[in-house]
Amino acid sequence: MLVCHLAAFVAASRCFCRYPGQYNIRHYCKKTPSRLWVSEALSSSELRENIIIQGWVRSVRAQKANLFLHVTDGSCLQPLQIVASSELNDPSLTFGSAVEVTGVLKRSPHPRQPVELEAHHINVVGKCNPVEFPFKIKDRHSLEYIRQYPHLRCRTNAFGSLLRIRSEAATAIHSYFKKNGFVNIHTPIITSNDCEGAGELFQVEPSGQKPKEDENFFSVPAFLTVSGQLHLEVMSGAFSRVYTFGPTFRAENSQSRRHLAEFYMVEAEVSFTQSLEDLTEVMEDMFKSATEHVLAECSEDVDLFHKYVTPGHRGTLDAMMTTSFPIITYSEAIEILSRSSQKFVFPTDWGCDLQTEHEKYLVNHCGNIPVFVTDYPYDLKPFYARDNQDRPHHTAAAVDLLVPGVGELCGGSLREERLDLLKNRLEQVGLEDAYSWYLDLRQFGSVPHGGFGMGFERFLQCILGVDNIKDVIPFPRFSNSCSL
Amino acid sequence: MLVCHLAAFVAASRCFCRYPGQYNIRHYCKKTPSRLWVSEALSSSELRENIIIQGWVRSVRAQKANLFLHVTDGSCLQPLQIVASSELNDPSLTFGSAVEVTGVLKRSPHPRQPVELEAHHINVVGKCNPVEFPFKIKDRHSLEYIRQYPHLRCRTNAFGSLLRIRSEAATAIHSYFKKNGFVNIHTPIITSNDCEGAGELFQVEPSGQKPKEDENFFSVPAFLTVSGQLHLEVMSGAFSRVYTFGPTFRAENSQSRRHLAEFYMVEAEVSFTQSLEDLTEVMEDMFKSATEHVLAECSEDVDLFHKYVTPGHRGTLDAMMTTSFPIITYSEAIEILSRSSQKFVFPTDWGCDLQTEHEKYLVNHCGNIPVFVTDYPYDLKPFYARDNQDRPHHTAAAVDLLVPGVGELCGGSLREERLDLLKNRLEQVGLEDAYSWYLDLRQFGSVPHGGFGMGFERFLQCILGVDNIKDVIPFPRFSNSCSL
Repeated sequence: MLVCHLAAFVAASRCFCRYPGQYNIRHYCKKTPSRLWVSEALSSSELRENIIIQGWVRSVRAQKANLFLHVTDGSCLQPLQIVASSELNDPSLTFGSAVEVTGVLKRSPHPRQPVELEAHHINVVGKCNPVEFPFKIKDRHSLEYIRQYPHLRCRTNAFGSLLRIRSEAATAIHSYFKKNGFVNIHTPIITSNDCEGAGELFQVEPSGQKPKEDENFFSVPAFLTVSGQLHLEVMSGAFSRVYTFGPTFRAENSQSRRHLAEFYMVEAEVSFTQSLEDLTEVMEDMFKSATEHVLAECSEDVDLFHKYVTPGHRGTLDAMMTTSFPIITYSEAIEILSRSSQKFVFPTDWGCDLQTEHEKYLVNHCGNIPVFVTDYPYDLKPFYARDNQDRPHHTAAAVDLLVPGVGELCGGSLREERLDLLKNRLEQVGLEDAYSWYLDLRQFGSVPHGGFGMGFERFLQCILGVDNIKDVIPFPRFSNSCSL
Repeated sequence: MLVCHLAAFVAASRCFCRYPGQYNIRHYCKKTPSRLWVSEALSSSELRENIIIQGWVRSVRAQKANLFLHVTDGSCLQPLQIVASSELNDPSLTFGSAVEVTGVLKRSPHPRQPVELEAHHINVVGKCNPVEFPFKIKDRHSLEYIRQYPHLRCRTNAFGSLLRIRSEAATAIHSYFKKNGFVNIHTPIITSNDCEGAGELFQVEPSGQKPKEDENFFSVPAFLTVSGQLHLEVMSGAFSRVYTFGPTFRAENSQSRRHLAEFYMVEAEVSFTQSLEDLTEVMEDMFKSATEHVLAECSEDVDLFHKYVTPGHRGTLDAMMTTSFPIITYSEAIEILSRSSQKFVFPTDWGCDLQTEHEKYLVNHCGNIPVFVTDYPYDLKPFYARDNQDRPHHTAAAVDLLVPGVGELCGGSLREERLDLLKNRLEQVGLEDAYSWYLDLRQFGSVPHGGFGMGFERFLQCILGVDNIKDVIPFPRFSNSCSL
């Protein structure tokens, strides 16, 4: 394994270091110790001498003869237990301090851990004043509390777990798409497309420059992307399947638990589609595959959430994983809402947009599992949505995936690939010049295609049951908040 | 395999489609044909009846009795040859048109391809007028020419290959870090850190809003990130190894072949470092692993570049892959430059920054292979670089990796983890308040650590030998240019 190989190489080279040394480790260099990650140590089955563990102290327990430490290095949730003679105790061995421990890795007599490290030497690399450190050894801090310390919250168990889960979920997304023949496209962050949601765009200009009219850095006004869809559609003229996974932006003046100014989106575009089912299949398959991957690879971290942070959520998640997601049309949804005895704040007439209260009702109505809603009113959807050309209710081939707790997780549509229909619609909204390049895509080798986007943070919320979107992203950005 | 499974499922479900059909395929639905990607068809070893291929026409050759088409769908560079009776010919079967072909997959009599599809039916899904289409069937277009058509250039062989290579290179980067125990962190795009390269930042504000003084969307001025390093350092207080891979920005007013306003960067941060070698090892290992991965997974696509676009580059790349990258100090580099007979435009005195001409000379001097330059003058490096505390030449523990053709590919440093030294330096530059959170990281469980960044586009240039950075990114952004 590369990790071990590299660690051994680093260890071996330490004594011959040609650079100004950072701190003296030669005292234990008689025989160079092998560095192990905590995760490697915990899964080791043999007794190993001369091991070095580097990490941060999670607990300290001093008894008369012995000192017990728990040390973590971010490689997994579970810490490694260190057992030392109490002579090795040191007042600077506190919660949060950084240590290097050398010793022998042994089978542990305690049933709660497979192994422990019998320490021969403990070196406090970085102290941590327990009075000033905002996290306390005995407290279980709430997500709200730790959110106040964006530069330190990764040092808590819960947020450490979240970050490992997020990393693994990103891997899961990429491997799902790779396995299924999708090409990863880096769609641009800065774009000159400004027509989709005008009010909510961030504009970009070089700092400190008073921009004169008609004198932009890019010659044209430039914005942060709200979606990579149109750029993925460019690629749909050469690739059967493409996707992108990156940051997107909304300048929404909202402090809500559901919105961020900067969030991650997974977007896919599929060529040669026949119907919306070509999309709903990919959405459901992606959701289930990625969730399975995360549950398998991060079981300990996910359990921390399901046991201590959001008890009760595991059942909801299991139900999602074991049923096929039902598909209802928008018209059916309107019927369900109209027949309901619940009083809604917003109207439920055909042609009205579905609001959060409606989405919640529909999800519950279907048994608290994810549900696809398809074929929305044509007039509610943007110019690129494919016209179903139906009557009396005129709909577009668009689809949303609504999920328990979160609401809208995915949104997608077939795209209007017919040049004449698209041209007409763009002319109606006065955008045919701005989108002449988009019309070109239909001019040359156009194919029926469609795609969807999934909010990555909402996906994490859905797996973990976490209520506030700010708790599933490393550095949340929203109105009046851009810490660090 | 999931791809086949899904394709079969989609094919099977087509006849029972509950949505308004997009185009009629029922004429060949007597027995539903199996859809194959071109790449699957080309690697199929058995005769298969009732196959459907969907893609774009790359060449048309009509003979008296037979019609020959080459069809591609983006799954690989090589097209699939279609053989049909000339009765199936159609004037709209032109270069660039989109087609669906059903027929029998057979062993080909021609040595240049393993299989071919004997067509029973050809359906032109999307026409392509060869007069208006900017790419011509017989021409080999230059990268400069195709760059003029950002919405269509993915339809050329060269740019199609580039996009597959770029996608695979991204996979390679992620898998290298995963295999080596790094956690993937999404560092923020919008940041309130403004101190690193003040003149070159993009500022972000909601569009259409005349920002009043002291009334920003985020309460504070907000910028597009120039590096995720400081945010990765936050994570270095809880994880031994972290990385980020995403877009970064410079508002540089440059039309150069080496710079973009938006580009991708791979950044890694390693805790418990002993010396710069802990970083140079990861850099070299990552470079070689990722390059090997790309050469193995995209050999056909890479060959297209090495044979037709940048002939002669393969030898340079092979030399990079088979030697250990030498390490020289900045002081040694200055000595080499001073002893050289070459006349440089910029001075080569100790303390001067290395310029492109110097970097080129050093790379050549070392045998046209990548070379690490370490321990730069302290005064040239930012506040976070670790002080080597040496005399008479005062240096910081920083390192650059210079590579043939491209120049600086990676830059990194050990970070100043000692609270007192860091505090002094921040006070000297008047930044101790803005970076009080950064000082906190050294206050609580500080560990020696370091990291580096690698320009992802430059990495691709280095593998492929492509001269202009605009040719290795899907949608290049630079001053006066933000197409689409």
